[in-house]
Amino acid sequence: MTAQTKPTSRERLLEATATLAYRQGVGIGVEELCKAAGVSKRSMYQLFRSKDELLAASLERRADSYAASLLPVTGDGRSPRERIRHVFEQVQSQAHEPEFRGCPYLAVQVELKDQNHPASQVAHRVKESLTGFFRAEADQGGASDPDLLARQLMLVFDGASARAGIGADNLAGLIEPTLSSLLDPAGMR
Amino acid sequence: MTAQTKPTSRERLLEATATLAYRQGVGIGVEELCKAAGVSKRSMYQLFRSKDELLAASLERRADSYAASLLPVTGDGRSPRERIRHVFEQVQSQAHEPEFRGCPYLAVQVELKDQNHPASQVAHRVKESLTGFFRAEADQGGASDPDLLARQLMLVFDGASARAGIGADNLAGLIEPTLSSLLDPAGMR
Repeated sequence: MTAQTKPTSRERLLEATATLAYRQGVGIGVEELCKAAGVSKRSMYQLFRSKDELLAASLERRADSYAASLLPVTGDGRSPRERIRHVFEQVQSQAHEPEFRGCPYLAVQVELKDQNHPASQVAHRVKESLTGFFRAEADQGGASDPDLLARQLMLVFDGASARAGIGADNLAGLIEPTLSSLLDPAGMR
Repeated sequence: MTAQTKPTSRERLLEATATLAYRQGVGIGVEELCKAAGVSKRSMYQLFRSKDELLAASLERRADSYAASLLPVTGDGRSPRERIRHVFEQVQSQAHEPEFRGCPYLAVQVELKDQNHPASQVAHRVKESLTGFFRAEADQGGASDPDLLARQLMLVFDGASARAGIGADNLAGLIEPTLSSLLDPAGMR
């Protein structure tokens, strides 16, 4: 047994779908996904009932690494305020990557329009978990209204991701004062 | 001559495209657009060089009514601060309509991924003109940094539109305190 095993057809399909749907949109065809993954259409339909299911599974698969790319580690000793800032610093840094197209979980919901689509439901859960992080930190930091602050931070998060994703704003000098304007009146530590 | 003239094939195509692309996404097929407009594919290609051009023209056609649905009338005697609030009150009210899917000009850019696409370029101009409105009002209201405030307002605008559009937030009780948190420290009248 070697430490590195060859990715299975299933893994290759999930990776190709996550990458290409993010880059080109959810309308990408099954043919193209199979080609990129080096998997036959027949095999694909043996592994996934439909493209919708493949798309949902590809988003699910990346959920943990997406959260890890944004969230600070548990118990890092920083204040809730600094832990919230960490998330936005990550977005700002990711926004400079040439491949950046905004939050993949927001994009998929905007594109699909149908919130009952299995992929939209995965995306919704991933976003809810980020809201949950903000709410917990807001609570911990003594925010006067943790629910409101969490919703405001998601508003800024999605606004920033979307605007950077479409190249409308590079976020430089924008996030820092915006966060202060929200965290200060909430009395956040 | 009657006051009401029958819409031309061109007008029907533009209306159908604007409506269906907003509801279903930019991936909608030419066949479906032509069917909805009651125009043959042949006629469509005589009127528009491509679906891309049709999509761009459909966004251009609705730009004025979109702006009118958001912006206060010129010289309405209200303060810049109230005029800015007006835009967000409109978004909040539009967000309650069952057909609401967020800002159509943001959505098209998120969906197309390609900022050089003719439809993205139309969308970009429409959004820039909203930024211009915010910047002018910020200037008029004595904001300490009108450019920054305009960018912050666009962040909130796009965040709010996107989150309401995907059903993640109904915006109730969210916009008002968020705007205050941005307008107050900027010293806006």
